[in-house]
Amino acid sequence: MGRINNGNFIYPVVVSCSVLLNLYFSYLFFGGGGTELSWSKDASTDAEAAAAVYCSGHGDAFLDGRLDEEGKHVCECRTCYGGPDCSEFQSDCPVDVDSGDPLFLEPFWRQHEASGSVTEAAYHRMSYVMKEGHLTSAELEREIRRLHSVVGNANTTGRYIVFGVGSMQLLGASVSALSARKNWAQPARVVASVPYYNAYRDQSMMFKGRDYEWSGDTSRWKNSSDQSPLNFIEFVTSPNNPDAQLKEAVLKHLSVERIHDHAYYWPHYTAIQAPADEDLMLFSLSKITGHAGSRFGWALIKDKDVYQRIGNYVQLATLGVSRDTQLRALRLIRAALERDEGRELFEFGYKTLRKRWDKLGAAFANYSDRFSLQKIPPRNCSYFGELRPPSPGYAWVRCEREEDEDCYAVLRDAGIIGRAGTQFAAESRYVRLSLLKSEDTFDLMLTRIREFEEKENRVQPM
Amino acid sequence: MGRINNGNFIYPVVVSCSVLLNLYFSYLFFGGGGTELSWSKDASTDAEAAAAVYCSGHGDAFLDGRLDEEGKHVCECRTCYGGPDCSEFQSDCPVDVDSGDPLFLEPFWRQHEASGSVTEAAYHRMSYVMKEGHLTSAELEREIRRLHSVVGNANTTGRYIVFGVGSMQLLGASVSALSARKNWAQPARVVASVPYYNAYRDQSMMFKGRDYEWSGDTSRWKNSSDQSPLNFIEFVTSPNNPDAQLKEAVLKHLSVERIHDHAYYWPHYTAIQAPADEDLMLFSLSKITGHAGSRFGWALIKDKDVYQRIGNYVQLATLGVSRDTQLRALRLIRAALERDEGRELFEFGYKTLRKRWDKLGAAFANYSDRFSLQKIPPRNCSYFGELRPPSPGYAWVRCEREEDEDCYAVLRDAGIIGRAGTQFAAESRYVRLSLLKSEDTFDLMLTRIREFEEKENRVQPM
Repeated sequence: MGRINNGNFIYPVVVSCSVLLNLYFSYLFFGGGGTELSWSKDASTDAEAAAAVYCSGHGDAFLDGRLDEEGKHVCECRTCYGGPDCSEFQSDCPVDVDSGDPLFLEPFWRQHEASGSVTEAAYHRMSYVMKEGHLTSAELEREIRRLHSVVGNANTTGRYIVFGVGSMQLLGASVSALSARKNWAQPARVVASVPYYNAYRDQSMMFKGRDYEWSGDTSRWKNSSDQSPLNFIEFVTSPNNPDAQLKEAVLKHLSVERIHDHAYYWPHYTAIQAPADEDLMLFSLSKITGHAGSRFGWALIKDKDVYQRIGNYVQLATLGVSRDTQLRALRLIRAALERDEGRELFEFGYKTLRKRWDKLGAAFANYSDRFSLQKIPPRNCSYFGELRPPSPGYAWVRCEREEDEDCYAVLRDAGIIGRAGTQFAAESRYVRLSLLKSEDTFDLMLTRIREFEEKENRVQPM
Repeated sequence: MGRINNGNFIYPVVVSCSVLLNLYFSYLFFGGGGTELSWSKDASTDAEAAAAVYCSGHGDAFLDGRLDEEGKHVCECRTCYGGPDCSEFQSDCPVDVDSGDPLFLEPFWRQHEASGSVTEAAYHRMSYVMKEGHLTSAELEREIRRLHSVVGNANTTGRYIVFGVGSMQLLGASVSALSARKNWAQPARVVASVPYYNAYRDQSMMFKGRDYEWSGDTSRWKNSSDQSPLNFIEFVTSPNNPDAQLKEAVLKHLSVERIHDHAYYWPHYTAIQAPADEDLMLFSLSKITGHAGSRFGWALIKDKDVYQRIGNYVQLATLGVSRDTQLRALRLIRAALERDEGRELFEFGYKTLRKRWDKLGAAFANYSDRFSLQKIPPRNCSYFGELRPPSPGYAWVRCEREEDEDCYAVLRDAGIIGRAGTQFAAESRYVRLSLLKSEDTFDLMLTRIREFEEKENRVQPM
C-alpha cells in the first residue's frame, strides 16, 4: 500500500510538471511568446544554412553563392586558400593586398551577427519613392547625423545630405555639379595632390565631361597667379589614401572649389582632431562598418544649389541608391551605435589596425636600408580622449635601394601584390599595401616579408 | 484497489505521453527540427512586426520607416490617403499617375511573401569582390539567362552580361562606351524617336560628355545622306515608353550604333514576338518583378570590347551594383521562376494590366471626341501561346478638342497628374498616364475621369 500510495503521490506531480512543461513549449512554439516567425522563416533558414557552412576560417559560404550537388553552399576561399573547406594552403601563391577591401571588420560582425543582420520582406520598398517623394530614407539620414555627432568627426549642422552608390558615385557627381554651376569660360581643372587616390583621375578621364578636365597634381598649379583665368576643382583627401597623412587644400586661388574626401576620417584609421567643417565632404559606409560590397556613401553639403545639383545627378544617373542597401546601412549603423555609442566598433577597428601597423613595422625593422614606411606621429584623439599611436589603413612603402626602382616588382617577386605608386601618380619606388584585408591575408603578407628576409640573408653571405 | 490499480495503469501512460510530447517540443524548439533560428531571429521578428502593421490596404509600414512613440512602425500612405492607418480618403486630392512605379505587382509578392523575402547576414558579402575578383554574382547571371530562355524574349547565347544600378545607369554607360570606342572625328549624335523616354535626353545633357551630344528626334536625321560625316547613337525602345508601340531602328546610316531598351519587353506588357537578338539590349528588374526601389538592371552585349567598356564604366562609376541588391534580385527571380517557370508572375501582371486597360478604355469611351488612347492591336504571344489583347503599362492620351492644347493642364484640372507629352518631346496635346501604380491609385484615376464626365454633362445643357 505504501508503495501504491507513494505512486499516487508521485505520479500526479510528474504529470502536472510534464503537462506544464508541455504547455510552456506549446506557448513558445505556437507564437505565444511573440517569437514564432511566419513568412520570414524560409529566408532566415536559408541564410543561416549558408552562414553555418564551415570554411576553416579562410573563406565564407554566401547565400547567393554556388550550391554543390547536394544543395549545400560552396565555400569561397580567401587569397591563397583552396579546397572544399578552404583548408588547403597554397604555399607558393602571391598574397593579394592590392585593394582596400575592409575585411578586417568582418570578425566584429560575426560577434554581432544578431543586431547586424536584416530581413527584407518580398514587398519591401518596391516603389521608386519613399515618404513624400524622396528617394532616400529619412531615418538613415537621422542615424548618419547621430553617428557624426557621436564621433565628432564632422559638423552636420546646416548641412544637406545626399546619398550615393558608394562615395565613388559622389566623386563624379561632385565634379559634375561644381563644374556645371559656375559657367566658367574654360573647363574646370580637376586636381589632387600626389600621391592621390587613382579614382579621382580615372573617373574624370572616363566621364570626359565638357565642363572639366583632369589636370593632375596640385603642385603644378600652386604658383599660378590668382589673376589667371584658370578655375580648379581640388580633391582634398584627409587622411590621405594612400599615405594616411592629414591634408589641407593646397590651391589658394579665388576660383577653387573643393571636394573633401573624408572616407578615412574615422577613429579606426586616425585620431579625430575636430569636427570637419568644409563645404562639401564625402564619407563611405565601406570604411566605417566594413561593408564595401553594399555601395553606400554620402555627401555633407553646405550650399543648397550644390546639394540640388549633386542630388539631381544621383537621381538621373541611377535613380538614387538601392533601397535594400539603405535598409542595410540603417541596420548596421544602428547596430554599431547601440554598442556603447559606436565605441565597440571603433575600438575593434582601431586595435586591429594598430596591431597590424606594429607588426608590419617590426617585420620591416631589419630592413630599413631596403624598405621604409611612412611616418605618422601619435596624436590626441578627441573621440577616444587620449593620445593615440598610428593605425593607418595602408602602408605606403618606399624601396630605398637605388636598384629597386620598380618597388611593385620587387614586392611582387617576394609574393606580395600591392598597388604600384604610379597608380597614385607617385614614383615607382612606392607601393601601397592594404592593411584592411582579412587577418589571414595580413598574416600571410607578414610571412612573405619574413620569407623574403630569410632568402636575402641566405643570399648575402655568398 | 481497482481504483488504485487503474491509477497505476493510467498514470504511466499519461506520463509517458506527456514526456514524449515534451521531447518532441524540445526537439522542435532547440533546433532538432532544423527550423529553429538563431542569429536571424531578431531581424526577422523586426521585419514581420513592420509588415504586420495595418494600413487599411492604402499604405505600408516599412522596416526602415519612422517609429511612433511606442516603437511601432508608422504607416506610409499612398496618394490621396492619410491618417494613422491610411484609412482617411482625401477626396479633393489630385491622383498622381506620373511615374512608372510598378506597384501593380505588389499584391503578387504579398501572396508569395515567403519565397520572395530575404535574410542577409551581418557579414554577407562585405568585400568589393565576389568569387574570382568579379563584382557580380555568377548565380544571378545564370538565373537571368534562364529567365530570358523561359520567356523567350531575348537571345542570351554568346552574349556578355553587365549589371547596372538600374537600367538607368546602363543608358549612360552604353552611350559613353559606344561613343568612346569609335574615335569618331565629331561627337556622336545621341538620338531617339519621338515620343521617347525623357531620361535618354536628360542623362545625355547632364553628363555632357565630350564624345557625344544629345541631338533629339531621329526624324531630323532620317534623310541625311550616308555620305555625311555624322555618327549616331540611336535609342530604340520596344515596346516604347510612353506609347507601348513596338519599334525598330529608324536610322539606316552605316555609322549608327544602337541601344535597344527592352525594359517593357515582358509578357505583362506586350505579346512576345520572338527572342530579341540585337547587339546591345537593356533590361530592368523594376519592370519584371516590380522592385523599382532595388535599382537593378542588366545589359546583354554581343561585342567583347563594348562589354568591357560598359563593365569598366559601371566599375569606375559605382564599383558595381550593391551586393545586397544582387542577392535580392537573385531571390526574387528564383521565386518567380519556381512558380510554374514564371507563369504565375506574368499571368498576374498581364491580367492586372489587361483589366486596367479595358476599364480605362470604357471610362474614356463616352469621350472619344475629347480624349483618345493609342491603338494597340492584339498579337500572338509566343510565351502564352495565344492571341493576346493589349496590356500596356501606360496610356498615351491625346486631347482631341482644339482648345485643349495643354492636355496635361486639362487632366490636372480634372484631378489627374500625368506626365506631359512635352516631356517625351511630343506635342502638349499628349499626356502619359501610368497604369503601373497600385490598385487604389488606378481606381482613383477612374473615379476622377468619371467625375470629370459628370461635371461636363452637367455643364453641357446650359
